Amino acid sequence: MPLHPTTISRLPTPCLLLDIHKLEANIQRLSERMAKLGGILRPHVKTHKSIDVMRKVLAGGNLKGITVSTLHEANYFFKNGVADILYAVSIAPNKLEQVHQLMASGCDLKIILDSLQAAQFVIQYGKVHAITFKVLIELDTDDHRSGVKPEGSELIDIAKVIDENEGAELLGVMTHAGESYACNTPESRLNIARQERDRSLHAAQQLKQAKLPCPVVSIGSTPTAFAIDELNGITEVRAGVYTFFDLVMAGIGVCKQDNIALSVLSSVIGYQHEKGWVITDSGWMSLSRDRGTSNQAIDYKYGVVCDAEGQPIKNLVVSNANQEHGIVSKHFPSDEPLPDLPIGSLLRILPNHACSTSSQYEHYYVVDGDQVIGQWQRTSGW
Amino acid sequence: MPLHPTTISRLPTPCLLLDIHKLEANIQRLSERMAKLGGILRPHVKTHKSIDVMRKVLAGGNLKGITVSTLHEANYFFKNGVADILYAVSIAPNKLEQVHQLMASGCDLKIILDSLQAAQFVIQYGKVHAITFKVLIELDTDDHRSGVKPEGSELIDIAKVIDENEGAELLGVMTHAGESYACNTPESRLNIARQERDRSLHAAQQLKQAKLPCPVVSIGSTPTAFAIDELNGITEVRAGVYTFFDLVMAGIGVCKQDNIALSVLSSVIGYQHEKGWVITDSGWMSLSRDRGTSNQAIDYKYGVVCDAEGQPIKNLVVSNANQEHGIVSKHFPSDEPLPDLPIGSLLRILPNHACSTSSQYEHYYVVDGDQVIGQWQRTSGW
Repeated sequence: MPLHPTTISRLPTPCLLLDIHKLEANIQRLSERMAKLGGILRPHVKTHKSIDVMRKVLAGGNLKGITVSTLHEANYFFKNGVADILYAVSIAPNKLEQVHQLMASGCDLKIILDSLQAAQFVIQYGKVHAITFKVLIELDTDDHRSGVKPEGSELIDIAKVIDENEGAELLGVMTHAGESYACNTPESRLNIARQERDRSLHAAQQLKQAKLPCPVVSIGSTPTAFAIDELNGITEVRAGVYTFFDLVMAGIGVCKQDNIALSVLSSVIGYQHEKGWVITDSGWMSLSRDRGTSNQAIDYKYGVVCDAEGQPIKNLVVSNANQEHGIVSKHFPSDEPLPDLPIGSLLRILPNHACSTSSQYEHYYVVDGDQVIGQWQRTSGW
Repeated sequence: MPLHPTTISRLPTPCLLLDIHKLEANIQRLSERMAKLGGILRPHVKTHKSIDVMRKVLAGGNLKGITVSTLHEANYFFKNGVADILYAVSIAPNKLEQVHQLMASGCDLKIILDSLQAAQFVIQYGKVHAITFKVLIELDTDDHRSGVKPEGSELIDIAKVIDENEGAELLGVMTHAGESYACNTPESRLNIARQERDRSLHAAQQLKQAKLPCPVVSIGSTPTAFAIDELNGITEVRAGVYTFFDLVMAGIGVCKQDNIALSVLSSVIGYQHEKGWVITDSGWMSLSRDRGTSNQAIDYKYGVVCDAEGQPIKNLVVSNANQEHGIVSKHFPSDEPLPDLPIGSLLRILPNHACSTSSQYEHYYVVDGDQVIGQWQRTSGW
């Protein structure tokens, strides 16, 4: 939705700012990387959940379809013209009816699973309703969360059941190296990226040896997408948070703080001078409860405090937060006085985790410096 | 919005369940307590943000007006027929225009502040726009967050400026004993409740001695509202989370786990048998990132796992969470096997913090046992 031109000083606080230049540069960076490696992106939309952001991602090129974390996202993006969708959370029986409806409406929706039990109820539903679900088997390539072992017999057992029955079609394998979020050196990220790739290729090889189809080998995460050095055999790479970036990604070195496109605009509303506190109207409801940097080398508490122009203010963080109150104070003890921040001063807060912070809002105010150039919708819920 | 009668087995997951009997009992409990003490409630709506829940609170009686944490809530509840509203976050200059609009529409909106700077910009706006803002001065009675000291001269200085100028009217004082959330014995809660009351009464006395008006003395929090033993001189008590309760409140002993009216309905979607993990479709997006019990005597991680009927399953918690994945496992090491939870099994998760968990949803499914008897709207944002 275009706005009459305005500046951020006219916005209500707290609200969510999206820096258009940083967004475009972030998108471009991964697109160029994929182009160089001959890779194809299937970007994850769970960070932005916005068709307006997606249009920028599409403009970046080198991509095919999207990845979603909920069927609500699938429905939203399909209604907004994106048909090729991978729902990247193991399917539950009570979601098949909605998957069916989306497919019947023309959505090219793919689902994932990682157990014989799930394969069986998918096949059963497919047979009863005369529909063929497109299925990828999730692999556990880094001991992080879900998925079957790429080397084990369970992979083949599940694949055979899908391949031999009506109701489902085996598309291939997918994995997400979630452990990469804890890799804070280029070497460790390259290692886990290669492991994610190689164990997925090994699984694909296993399937082919068993005369089972595996046209799709889908891998990815923001850290591994930027680390991987070669993609032969990989048909698609998924990544999401790279569009916005955040303090967690900066903390492990995948981006710099200056690349973070997202911030929360806050107003100063009070002080506790004796304690060295500046109080803002931006508490955890607006920043989210996510404290992703708490186990990183530098804990930025509830976020890095920047001035109204987006420049970090030296040694200032949101040190604590209540529902609608943020407490801004010095990050580390120092003799330097706090900056002068009269009531009403605007601050931009860089978030720990872009996915959780943006989920607290219904829209983004898109900014170019202090000019508000648009208001972009986003969706949420299930 | 009424639904055709259905059972929770027909609901999408994750979704938010609200137990009607527990809700009504929680509301009744505080209403009865206020009646016994001769107190009047000004319930805080920031937990539920729902006019449907509010109707139940209104039915409980012993109340006058509501408390809100955002002007968005003020607008929502005013449009739904509630006119007497206290906005309990220090006012920012950029919010006065919206306060003005609400007042011009007939909303009896009260604002708060705790600095001379804020008093001056409120008066200035009031004078320019020929409106009289109704103002309470926030007190810091427990060294927790915002407010001026009840005993200091700043209180009188601010009060005089408000009283002597056009543009604002001094209504009195208010405080919130946020430290009470850390008081885990009845004795400590009684102490902080008396401190909240007595320091507020002292401030009111100071104002009266200075010939300044103080018709309103507003105190409260859920823990202190249940602890306070006498309310002479207190004109209203604010509390919010008592409607739903949560694991944090149960952890300090203000309620029992069995009183928690709110839960997140989740589906089992997979396993990692070797690790003792059951995977669900309810990650931190549906539970919130709030880990309020992490610094309590018992840390319930991302929540207590109950069966579909709402009975806690012994020794089972959501031990970790990703965006749309919950990892359910044993709370403490034990030789007992995990319960049999086939894929598709429904679980109810009791939340750490009702305010943050409910904020992730657009509505509540109201349940009576396993029957869904209604779908209640809620609002969010700013």
